[in-house]
Amino acid sequence: MVYKKITLIGSSTEGFEQAVDDAIARAEDTLDNVHWVEVKSRGVELASVEDREYQATVEVAFKLDQ
Amino acid sequence: MVYKKITLIGSSTEGFEQAVDDAIARAEDTLDNVHWVEVKSRGVELASVEDREYQATVEVAFKLDQ
Amino acid sequence: MVYKKITLIGSSTEGFEQAVDDAIARAEDTLDNVHWVEVKSRGVELASVEDREYQATVEVAFKLDQ
Amino acid sequence: MVYKKITLIGSSTEGFEQAVDDAIARAEDTLDNVHWVEVKSRGVELASVEDREYQATVEVAFKLDQ
Amino acid sequence: MVYKKITLIGSSTEGFEQAVDDAIARAEDTLDNVHWVEVKSRGVELASVEDREYQATVEVAFKLDQ
Amino acid sequence: MVYKKITLIGSSTEGFEQAVDDAIARAEDTLDNVHWVEVKSRGVELASVEDREYQATVEVAFKLDQ
Amino acid sequence: MVYKKITLIGSSTEGFEQAVDDAIARAEDTLDNVHWVEVKSRGVELASVEDREYQATVEVAFKLDQ
Amino acid sequence: MVYKKITLIGSSTEGFEQAVDDAIARAEDTLDNVHWVEVKSRGVELASVEDREYQATVEVAFKLDQ
Amino acid sequence: MVYKKITLIGSSTEGFEQAVDDAIARAEDTLDNVHWVEVKSRGVELASVEDREYQATVEVAFKLDQ
Amino acid sequence: MVYKKITLIGSSTEGFEQAVDDAIARAEDTLDNVHWVEVKSRGVELASVEDREYQATVEVAFKLDQ
Amino acid sequence: MVYKKITLIGSSTEGFEQAVDDAIARAEDTLDNVHWVEVKSRGVELASVEDREYQATVEVAFKLDQ
Amino acid sequence: MVYKKITLIGSSTEGFEQAVDDAIARAEDTLDNVHWVEVKSRGVELASVEDREYQATVEVAFKLDQ
Repeated sequence: MVYKKITLIGSSTEGFEQAVDDAIARAEDTLDNVHWVEVKSRGVELASVEDREYQATVEVAFKLDQ
Repeated sequence: MVYKKITLIGSSTEGFEQAVDDAIARAEDTLDNVHWVEVKSRGVELASVEDREYQATVEVAFKLDQ
Repeated sequence: MVYKKITLIGSSTEGFEQAVDDAIARAEDTLDNVHWVEVKSRGVELASVEDREYQATVEVAFKLDQ
Repeated sequence: MVYKKITLIGSSTEGFEQAVDDAIARAEDTLDNVHWVEVKSRGVELASVEDREYQATVEVAFKLDQ
Repeated sequence: MVYKKITLIGSSTEGFEQAVDDAIARAEDTLDNVHWVEVKSRGVELASVEDREYQATVEVAFKLDQ
Repeated sequence: MVYKKITLIGSSTEGFEQAVDDAIARAEDTLDNVHWVEVKSRGVELASVEDREYQATVEVAFKLDQ
Repeated sequence: MVYKKITLIGSSTEGFEQAVDDAIARAEDTLDNVHWVEVKSRGVELASVEDREYQATVEVAFKLDQ
Repeated sequence: MVYKKITLIGSSTEGFEQAVDDAIARAEDTLDNVHWVEVKSRGVELASVEDREYQATVEVAFKLDQ
Repeated sequence: MVYKKITLIGSSTEGFEQAVDDAIARAEDTLDNVHWVEVKSRGVELASVEDREYQATVEVAFKLDQ
Repeated sequence: MVYKKITLIGSSTEGFEQAVDDAIARAEDTLDNVHWVEVKSRGVELASVEDREYQATVEVAFKLDQ
Repeated sequence: MVYKKITLIGSSTEGFEQAVDDAIARAEDTLDNVHWVEVKSRGVELASVEDREYQATVEVAFKLDQ
Repeated sequence: MVYKKITLIGSSTEGFEQAVDDAIARAEDTLDNVHWVEVKSRGVELASVEDREYQATVEVAFKLDQ
């Protein structure tokens, strides 16, 4: 059994909790067998966007097919 | 005056804020003189649970009796 | 173009999301051209305050005048 | 010449050495030109499995086609 | 659901794999509901012992009773 | 809006600046919407190559299609 | 042979050397077979105390009974 | 003798060496007695700018007046 | 309530304890409401000074006016 | 009593346990009074060798003559 | 096969690329079988020198004779 | 101009300040042109010695002859 880990950055104008959920939703839409997620860092983009863009960098681990 | 630090992992199906509060509540139920808490890491368990389980690892510092 | 980064610690009795927003609000009140923010650590002060004080340490990057 | 690095987690009921080999074997089955591997962390899953599952997180570097 | 994490250092004259197993065995003898283990560091003591003493520092996470 | 981050290692016989540019060029050839790049580490391979091979490990963030 | 590591924070109005000794004294009063100590961080509390309170966070390793 | 350290981010369309020099030049224009500089991280902004913007985050240490 | 953190480097020909106190004294002379201090690193300058210059890098947190 | 620490990288076609032992054997052949060893990182070289070359980077501490 | 790693700091009034090359040249002049080099940190000395002195700290790995 | 960095561990039954001085004294006895020293970690050995042995790990940078 081998897992693979990829790094996604979710974003939201609401807050970090939504930014994490945004990344998980994307992972579950495109990958089977997502097992766990680790939050790596959080930031807020202010200059190049209209509203505050909350960003959460997460690592997503999923099981590879055998 | 000597403090001790222990590591707890709170969990919640709601989000990280509740997972941290969950760990603090547990600490305050079983320890006197909890002084401060540091959040160390956050993750989400997906595979072995029904709903997303948000987990927050925290270090809890409390004052030891003399 | 040169940016400067300063470190602020926002606090809130509500939770970490408000503590981060608190620090960003302060930065935007006193600085022009705030570009982005990075969340560095989170903690909760319990002993020396009446309610839980959620604290978020953030680095704020802003563009310096030329 | 450009390399790419991906993160795999090998697992084994035998031990960490086999878990690393498990991840390398998977990498070599599906990728050409694997150049080197770095071991990042090790853990053991106990609760959700029948036997101890030794896990090794590795970064695999391979050469991209030009 | 709240987990607690403690730090143990297993030792063995055989090697690191046995030192990790030594710490896990101790944890499972004295704690209920051990969920997972993370290996933090490894070292070898040479001067104050007769044979090489392989040491593995591990963090053990277990579920607390409610 | 979700971003993905991948890790590339650019190389050059000229120096690190070219090694970073080499990795960025590769990323822009094969990915749409590359937003930013972070330099993670630098090294020089000497033994298995004719000339010094300067290597720069970079993380590349790009926006995923919705 | 298995060791356990706990985290204590010693404090002193004199300085860091005394704060470390304070934590070691506490450890030796309440634990048998303390083997070694690692200093992890140092800080000074100023606002909530009358005199400067020097604090040293240490990890204490002791041998467990068999 | 007390020094203060501030964090600047220099930028350049040429490369990282110029980005570092850009930050040092700014520091020397506005501060007396700059003693040394440490490079902390490097990145490249691509999406919100016309040309690649190489950025170098540096810590600048300068002596305070007595 | 928002705090700000700045980085100072105290120095002394006596030792590290004095170097830390030197930085705290400077902070308290020029800032109101200093709350706490974290020691980040220590070093000794030997070549460019007559006596050993012990240096302690500290982060100083103080409360901002509202 | 002063110790010195050097960094060695042991290698083996068998696995990491042998790679560590390989480095320790070398240290004990050429140094007196080796006291302890810390394992810093592990990797596997694949491209420039015939068989997998397991590599373990270790720090070796030994007592200096007075 | 055992490698040894030493730490050198190259310097240059030109820039970091030359400072790294300076350290590599020194390593190759005095050591046989230098295999690879890792750049660890970069800084600029300003106060005690006439021109800016760019410094690069590198770890040099070379194969030991058997 | 090239510097080399070595790692020494000074020890003392008095405290950490003396342990650092012990390592510096050793460095200056056996090396010319010691430029600066960085303190890396501190620990106390208790089990295998009669009195507490305070240990300080330091990196010593010295200028190499040309």
